[in-house]
Order: sequence, then structure tokens, then C-alpha cells
Amino acid sequence: MHLPLFTCKLKLKLQTEEITSNFMSLIKAFEWRYAAKKYDTSRKLTQNQVVDLLGPVQLAPSSYGLQPYKFIHVQNLATLEKISRAAFGQPQITTASHILVIAVDTNIGEETVKKYIAAAALARKTERKNLEAREQFVNSRLALLSAAQKIEWAEKQAFLAVGILISAAAEAGIDASPMEGFDHGQLDEILGLKEHNLQSTLLFALGYRSPDDEFASLAKVRKSHDELFPTF
Amino acid sequence: MHLPLFTCKLKLKLQTEEITSNFMSLIKAFEWRYAAKKYDTSRKLTQNQVVDLLGPVQLAPSSYGLQPYKFIHVQNLATLEKISRAAFGQPQITTASHILVIAVDTNIGEETVKKYIAAAALARKTERKNLEAREQFVNSRLALLSAAQKIEWAEKQAFLAVGILISAAAEAGIDASPMEGFDHGQLDEILGLKEHNLQSTLLFALGYRSPDDEFASLAKVRKSHDELFPTF
Repeated sequence: MHLPLFTCKLKLKLQTEEITSNFMSLIKAFEWRYAAKKYDTSRKLTQNQVVDLLGPVQLAPSSYGLQPYKFIHVQNLATLEKISRAAFGQPQITTASHILVIAVDTNIGEETVKKYIAAAALARKTERKNLEAREQFVNSRLALLSAAQKIEWAEKQAFLAVGILISAAAEAGIDASPMEGFDHGQLDEILGLKEHNLQSTLLFALGYRSPDDEFASLAKVRKSHDELFPTF
Repeated sequence: MHLPLFTCKLKLKLQTEEITSNFMSLIKAFEWRYAAKKYDTSRKLTQNQVVDLLGPVQLAPSSYGLQPYKFIHVQNLATLEKISRAAFGQPQITTASHILVIAVDTNIGEETVKKYIAAAALARKTERKNLEAREQFVNSRLALLSAAQKIEWAEKQAFLAVGILISAAAEAGIDASPMEGFDHGQLDEILGLKEHNLQSTLLFALGYRSPDDEFASLAKVRKSHDELFPTF
């Protein structure tokens, strides 16, 4: 099953609201997508495609704007073989075009905020001292969290960004599989994440589904709108 | 600033890969979006728009497919006033068209998995007993988590779905603000979430930005591609 070759986005601007068929495409894209298990090893994403997919991820919102994560592209084949073992041999790791390891910062603190404030001063063409109140506020909020709570908080921000990556991939007709089933300690060790003050939170495969991936034809199992989206 | 009125999605299918300008729209949408602080109270989303935005969220992938969350639409004005106070008077709560409270299940266990398996048997037109191995596997994985860890896990799934909602809103030219700054205990109490075995994790506003929201004109502060997306 493929997305239609030509889809036109049409936006009509009326006086009081925009009627748009824009996001129908995203719904269709989500009907088309599934978490591919087995990828077509003959089809690779171009570097440009990957850059385009990561564009919206770079612009993802995050709490206090800190973006406390990295999406690490692992290219080395020997490393991927090791990751495959740490992920219990799941076929995505060695068949997908691109494997990302999503990792969160483990040393979130005043230095993190300092860097953010410096970047904000630059982006907003203002002096650093004009942002001191903001810096103090963010530091005071982070100070309320234990080290473990900061990591939990960072993981939530990372998962939000992952939701954006899944959307971008689906829109582009590119398959994507988020994977939580792996030995986190082993993966951290394989990539030496600790030395980088990082900790793995998710594996993510990108590429094109294999024509013989039997999971592609399984009906989706989802809760109903009424169950997921109640009104209180 | 508005999205272009007409955007055409063009996909060319070549032998070895798809060249697509599809997801440029999502990048543009993310450049356009920001976390609106103040909404235009005169502009409301239609029910159809909200249903369309939630469509991809319903199809969001989640670990083991359990979707352990709800996106609760709060309509009652008196309740919104209370929520506004629990969120330190942030102007989004009382100016946005729609306020969602994103809450996670606090009683994830064998009953959760049982319901999922029943839904899967129905969706996949198979007998329940054919899914027993899957049920046992998921139960064995969940049994490794403490009650607090299950909530953390559920929150990550919810944040992934939030990333999809942010993408859907941006694509549709609808403003959206995820908000973590609120008193979680107070909010849970206001909505009586505990009795529903739920716990709030995020507030989410949807609508149209106010023309005088000064945050709209602030330059974005984001880490560079190289910093966020390293190669290992």
C-alpha cells in the first residue's frame, strides 16, 4: 500500500476560521504507517531525506526550551551488530536504513541553563543580563528535581520529539519503528554514553518496510475516540 | 505570518527510492508554530477540527499498544477557572479555544492487558487463545516495573502522542501550547482524576494565537542539527 502519488493541500481562509484539508494527510499517513519489523535492505534513505525528517524534530518544543536529548545516528556495522544483540535480535536493527539511539542528558543543571540562556541572548539579539530573571527561574524549578526526576523529565521531552519524528516520517511515506525492548545498560556501554553524560531511552529505526513483513497486514488495535478523548 | 494558502504535495516514485517534497510542509509548519501564550478568544475550533486533530493521536503507537492515557477535554468554565489558578494564572487556560488535560492510567496491570488482548482478537479476527502468548509476554514485562515506573512509562507514551498532536496542529495552522507548569495534585483534585485511576501529566491548549501575543515574534532558540543529531 502506498500513499497517493499526488496530494494537494488546500487551505481556504474564511473570515472567522481557516477551513483546511491540510491535516487529512497526516491522518492518512497514520493509517498507512505501522511499526515495521523487517525493512527492505535494498532501499536506503538519502542524507537529504534524513535531514528533512529531523528538521521538525530540531524545532520540537521542550520544557524551558532545554532540549535535553540527542538523536544519535549509529552507522558502524559492527556497533549495529552489538546493538542488535542488546535488542534481543529484533530484525529492525540490521535491516533498517537508519538506526537512531535516542538518549537523554544525565547532567542537567545550571550549566545546561547557562548555555540555553547564552543561545537565547544570541538568537534574540539581547544582552545576557536581560535574561537573568529567566535563568534564575529555570534554575529554581530544576533545583526541585532529584537527579532521577530530571532524567524522567528529560525522557518525556525526548518522547515528545519522537512523536514529531514519527509524524514527519509518516507524512513522507517513510517507515519508522520506535523500540523500547532493549537492554539499556548494555546499549549505553556499547556506545560509551556515560562518558558523554547521556543515557539511552529509545531505539528508532527508519527506512522502507520489507514487502514480506507480515506485520504490515495486521489490523491496528486502538482504543476508540470516546475512550481516549473523554470530556470532563 | 500565515502558511501558504496552497501547498501541493508532490511525490515522484523512482526505481530505488521515493523523492518527496511531502514533509517540507511539516518543517514549514514547525517554523510557523510557537507555544502561544495568549489566544484569540473570538476564534474557536469547530468540533470537526478537533476530531481531525485527534485522529492521528488515536493512531499513535505506544509500547505494547496499550495507550495508557487519556486526553481529557475540559469544557466547564468554572472548572477552567480553577485549572487556571492551579496553573499559576497562565493566560492560555482561559483564552484558548480548547483545553485538554493529558492524564495517564495509574492502575496499569493484567486487567489493562486483558482488555487490549480482547480488542486485538476482535480487530484481527482471531480467537483470544491465539494471543495468549502475547498476553503472557506483556504481563511478564509489566511485572518487572514498580507502580511508579509504570506511571513513568505511561507518561513517556503520552508525551509521544503529544508530539503527534503538536505536529497535527502545526500542519493545520492551529496553535498549540503544551504546559508543564501547574500543580499536578491540585489539578488531579479539581477533576477528580484519582477516582478514575488517572493522574495528570500535561496541560494542552489549542486555538488561534492572539494578534497581540508578544511571544509570537520572539526568535526561536534551538540547538543546532550537529549538536542534537550526532553520528556515533
